[in-house]
Amino acid sequence: MASFFKSTRRVEFYETDMAGIVHFSNFYKWMEQCEHEFFRSLGLSIVRNQPDGSTIGWPRVSCQCRFESPARFDDVLEVQLTVRRIGVKSLTFDIAFTNNGQSVARGTLKTVCCIMRPGQTLKSLEIPDDYRSQLEEYRAST
Amino acid sequence: MASFFKSTRRVEFYETDMAGIVHFSNFYKWMEQCEHEFFRSLGLSIVRNQPDGSTIGWPRVSCQCRFESPARFDDVLEVQLTVRRIGVKSLTFDIAFTNNGQSVARGTLKTVCCIMRPGQTLKSLEIPDDYRSQLEEYRAST
Amino acid sequence: MASFFKSTRRVEFYETDMAGIVHFSNFYKWMEQCEHEFFRSLGLSIVRNQPDGSTIGWPRVSCQCRFESPARFDDVLEVQLTVRRIGVKSLTFDIAFTNNGQSVARGTLKTVCCIMRPGQTLKSLEIPDDYRSQLEEYRAST
Amino acid sequence: MASFFKSTRRVEFYETDMAGIVHFSNFYKWMEQCEHEFFRSLGLSIVRNQPDGSTIGWPRVSCQCRFESPARFDDVLEVQLTVRRIGVKSLTFDIAFTNNGQSVARGTLKTVCCIMRPGQTLKSLEIPDDYRSQLEEYRAST
Repeated sequence: MASFFKSTRRVEFYETDMAGIVHFSNFYKWMEQCEHEFFRSLGLSIVRNQPDGSTIGWPRVSCQCRFESPARFDDVLEVQLTVRRIGVKSLTFDIAFTNNGQSVARGTLKTVCCIMRPGQTLKSLEIPDDYRSQLEEYRAST
Repeated sequence: MASFFKSTRRVEFYETDMAGIVHFSNFYKWMEQCEHEFFRSLGLSIVRNQPDGSTIGWPRVSCQCRFESPARFDDVLEVQLTVRRIGVKSLTFDIAFTNNGQSVARGTLKTVCCIMRPGQTLKSLEIPDDYRSQLEEYRAST
Repeated sequence: MASFFKSTRRVEFYETDMAGIVHFSNFYKWMEQCEHEFFRSLGLSIVRNQPDGSTIGWPRVSCQCRFESPARFDDVLEVQLTVRRIGVKSLTFDIAFTNNGQSVARGTLKTVCCIMRPGQTLKSLEIPDDYRSQLEEYRAST
Repeated sequence: MASFFKSTRRVEFYETDMAGIVHFSNFYKWMEQCEHEFFRSLGLSIVRNQPDGSTIGWPRVSCQCRFESPARFDDVLEVQLTVRRIGVKSLTFDIAFTNNGQSVARGTLKTVCCIMRPGQTLKSLEIPDDYRSQLEEYRAST
């Protein structure tokens, strides 16, 4: 019933800090990177330029992460994304990072569908049908 | 009774993304930067090298942030840190970012005191007395 | 005759790597940060939104840096920018980083004035008169 | 006779800036990432922990990059590394980034072999024989 998307991410040298481990801020980038890989796997883009010059995007509402064991340079982490909730305008993902089966970090990312027009502020939007049907189908198939 | 530490942080160009706003991952770096400024203001360091070659540090346990309005290049954000909890081994900070009084983001950072020896794993540690007394005194004075 | 703009930059924890020193990629960010501070000091912005919806910006043509001694967490580096050349469309800056007088890094940044219109490619532009006069005056005054 | 190592790198959202293109500082990270992939392909590591507690590493001497066309979110860049020079203690790489055959950026990275001992400063070192023989063999085979 669960809907898993799996990816991997190698830790780069520039993502470590003087404590010899990954700087925690990178996990937030990696959550987003995994979300984008997931969208791409469904044939969707996280940035959709529309014919009228507007753009549909997915700004972050909130993001949290709990750090359970350190990751180091050259580690190849397994990243597993679960679609926790498909709301009217928002999506919530759980993302788990493991290293050879050991939990490294667990995060949650909540994002909201928005339309952006040049020179205007962001405006939230109901998730468009084609995004929704892809996401629902993904959940159903798993 | 509350204990506020205040700082400011200008948004740099390299912290923006193609949506024209600050990339959300920067807020986690800025929370840490503010925590370090707070420690520095108390005469403490977030990295203490000890005579025996070990180091006392403060790895992150968890960190979350809620994004309430976008920040942009050149904005000078006010950053306000509150010591929410001084535990036996851990500290919890609330950190709020505002822009001319408007809330931009609100985060919570939980960190744990650890001792690190070269070639060994991190080990948690009761918060040393001089850190604790400084932190308690700070809370009392505010 | 030389034209110096001086700033300082504290090394943040998130800018260090597992070798215990600043990751070299940060110096390029700091060169840009200093360039922006310099523009700001002249009352100019590196990003000028124009009434017609276009934007004047300064994309990088090239940037190099030579690393002479490591910088570490909490070091407060002195950053000194020199306007080496004001071309028709381009500017070249030399930027030196020192730590208590010891050379840390020396870089050169070449940037070109461009106009950007939404949905179009960048186009180079002769440096507008008000930028040029400010820059020339700055050189003359030093 | 040339010695090419080829890789690819997808542009992540967090690597873009408000101009809608990759922030130039990322190319320096990507040069290093490609250098590390090259070392890994030879069975070498850029960080070698030795039995006596010391570490062999490769700090940067200098790095430059010329930017020829912008790269954007989701572009998959081809990255090509050439070993330009194997010195006594230093290595020089040329690294070219292209996008569907169009030149995006061209950089040069010079790095020096060093030994690091805990609590001591970096010391340069003649390139160890096993690194050298691998690097020479690589050049000969291409």
